[in-house]
Amino acid sequence: MSETQKSPVKIALLGCGTVGGGVLRLLEDNREFLASRVGAELQVQHVLVRDLAKPRGEECKREWLTNDAEKIFNDPSVDLVVEVIGGETPARSYLERALESGRSVVTANKFLISKHGPALVRAAIEKRVDLAFEASVGGGIPIIRTLREALASDTVSSIHAILNGTCNYVLTRMRQDGLSFAAALKEAQELGYAEADPTMDVEGQDAAQKLSVLSMLAFDASISTDQFLIEGIRGVEDIDFRFADRFGFTLKHLCIGHDRGDQVELRAHPALIPKNSVLANVDGVLNGVFLMGRALGPCLLVGRGAGDMPTAVSVVADIVDVASSRIHGESGLATRGIQIKSRKVMSRDDIETRYYLRFGVGDHPGVLGRIASALGAEGVSIEQMVQEGRASETETAVPVCILTHQSKEGSVRRAIASIEQQSILKTQARLIRIEDV
Amino acid sequence: MSETQKSPVKIALLGCGTVGGGVLRLLEDNREFLASRVGAELQVQHVLVRDLAKPRGEECKREWLTNDAEKIFNDPSVDLVVEVIGGETPARSYLERALESGRSVVTANKFLISKHGPALVRAAIEKRVDLAFEASVGGGIPIIRTLREALASDTVSSIHAILNGTCNYVLTRMRQDGLSFAAALKEAQELGYAEADPTMDVEGQDAAQKLSVLSMLAFDASISTDQFLIEGIRGVEDIDFRFADRFGFTLKHLCIGHDRGDQVELRAHPALIPKNSVLANVDGVLNGVFLMGRALGPCLLVGRGAGDMPTAVSVVADIVDVASSRIHGESGLATRGIQIKSRKVMSRDDIETRYYLRFGVGDHPGVLGRIASALGAEGVSIEQMVQEGRASETETAVPVCILTHQSKEGSVRRAIASIEQQSILKTQARLIRIEDV
Repeated sequence: MSETQKSPVKIALLGCGTVGGGVLRLLEDNREFLASRVGAELQVQHVLVRDLAKPRGEECKREWLTNDAEKIFNDPSVDLVVEVIGGETPARSYLERALESGRSVVTANKFLISKHGPALVRAAIEKRVDLAFEASVGGGIPIIRTLREALASDTVSSIHAILNGTCNYVLTRMRQDGLSFAAALKEAQELGYAEADPTMDVEGQDAAQKLSVLSMLAFDASISTDQFLIEGIRGVEDIDFRFADRFGFTLKHLCIGHDRGDQVELRAHPALIPKNSVLANVDGVLNGVFLMGRALGPCLLVGRGAGDMPTAVSVVADIVDVASSRIHGESGLATRGIQIKSRKVMSRDDIETRYYLRFGVGDHPGVLGRIASALGAEGVSIEQMVQEGRASETETAVPVCILTHQSKEGSVRRAIASIEQQSILKTQARLIRIEDV
Repeated sequence: MSETQKSPVKIALLGCGTVGGGVLRLLEDNREFLASRVGAELQVQHVLVRDLAKPRGEECKREWLTNDAEKIFNDPSVDLVVEVIGGETPARSYLERALESGRSVVTANKFLISKHGPALVRAAIEKRVDLAFEASVGGGIPIIRTLREALASDTVSSIHAILNGTCNYVLTRMRQDGLSFAAALKEAQELGYAEADPTMDVEGQDAAQKLSVLSMLAFDASISTDQFLIEGIRGVEDIDFRFADRFGFTLKHLCIGHDRGDQVELRAHPALIPKNSVLANVDGVLNGVFLMGRALGPCLLVGRGAGDMPTAVSVVADIVDVASSRIHGESGLATRGIQIKSRKVMSRDDIETRYYLRFGVGDHPGVLGRIASALGAEGVSIEQMVQEGRASETETAVPVCILTHQSKEGSVRRAIASIEQQSILKTQARLIRIEDV
């Protein structure tokens, strides 16, 4: 039987915001080509919205619209559910119902996959259907596909990734143009790169959720964001960019994952990376994921981490895969490739890396010695120490910057606590990890 | 029927050099996982080699070995032919026979795909089988997969790519460590990055072949390497790196493709790119492909462009895809997605970009004016002009460096010819294109 004679794959789209609209447009604009790729027509059957009266673009036909989820789940002709609502409620129950009823699912929901990914994957495997979520991480970057397919015969030893466009935009503007954190953030909001409430972005939660999704595929791990170290970018100051530059680094908000054999190390925080790193020029709203495959070696993927059309391209790529599998009777193969194990998460104290430490001290003899001694007492070895300028009439605190050799996070923290107890600091100690990526 | 009950997919491997050995190792090491991904066991049936007596690694079982291609093509149980011989003869006839006999093919052969890709694709489509060639471009970088699948609903407007590891290694060493071209090339050969005869690499032919393959997928174009501008890196001198640095550029060997609507612009040559470009830090033996998708926006993929294991990982990823399609009765879908049209190639004279021009002139008044006038006469507008130092007792030629605004290649070439006729040049004029990527 020729594949063009196969009956269409019928799609229910849940949510019709900007990403949803983009998906409908791409499906319409590429109708014929996509049909030839899938081996059958892709046919939108329902579009679930909250407000039926709201004006929609012409890509969204009125007869598709419904605000009744029951209508969709009770329609036996729906093969494939595409979720672009976001958030936990009601998206989670919709996905669960879709999987339970034997439909394959495509979702762009990073929050759901990060929090309930393992359970949803298990549900999909049980029902022998697919759960695809390329658009949940890195917008248009084909990172899930790469982990799932290109690396089919390889294993990942580490990930270093820039996964939040808002943080990256803010840090880029601060570094390149000397904007303050507040000014850069306001600009990002005005340009539509940051949410009205940017807390999840600037506190690092959004990036951490994406790291959690990647670690499920890269390390077979089910690790939620409350299990690992997350720091945002609020504490980053102009002086840190100046020191970073002086030492040959650039400052990024980085998500880091290492397969440490018996445990998995995950963390999301600001980090100094060498200026000649392939991630160093991943600026503005771009995201980037740098993987190290045991056989493949280094692999970097960069693209727009958000935005309607990049995300819609990823959703449609997933639709093509899942629909194609479905009509050829092999649904669920991709999802069955995801093996989730119970893996130990490395404790924060055991993290081992290099550190940039900045202290604001009074300009007195002996202060540097006391800092160095406190670090030495914890076995933290100093690679460089720089005191910038001297106290003036306007500035009573003198910044002292220290780069350490490879050290354990626990030791560094104990040394900082000991320094803080000596009341020699005029400002809070600042710690930024250094990653040689 | 459970997919584990399906009969194995039987593979004939043509060639068993280092990549072939890597493929066998990955198939063995990941046997179970790959079987679950494919839905059936992957079983090596034959390994074609020239020399049966040559010692092989333990991943290569003796009973697989044959030096008789007929044995393979006459074995009706062979489903899938994997070619890692390279070159035109006998690889081409093997691939043709495999496709003709209804077998799907996985190949790492960039030369064949660049020269005969369109014909091979047509043969595959006719026989409704797959032709997969991820490993032919960019080693372990999943670029073919990204063009074919991730961008299923998008179109590519431009490509900027570093596709030759030897060139990139040589240029990196020249720039970072001041090595001469000859010394850097010798080192690349000693490290195994360059062939004993590096002509294809340093003359740009290898990179151009890969660009030709990419343009088949990105622009639906069948364009062979003799149809577009190719320049190698032999003419690049230390002084060009110094000038590049001074103007904020870094120098790379770049493959460039643009969809210009009615025609396709392709070229492979040394180029200056901004230091803050995402391609600028793609150094050493790394390759990088920067795509611009009309919906997706920018997308960069970086990885090892060569090497046994990265290439083997790509071959195995293709084997998984093709085998999986085959046992589910949908062979050929991926290949049928490749639409090759007859597209016009932009003539070299019509290329429009910015130019770096370097002239070695005598230190006489009026020389700069004559150069500027010659450029002006052709409508080439100068953005910057720098004369470095003055003539000394040892150096009679003074380097003059000019950056132009956007200009047509034809005009620039005519201006240079006119300057050369005035016998004011002490050394050959040097032209390097500037790409704002």
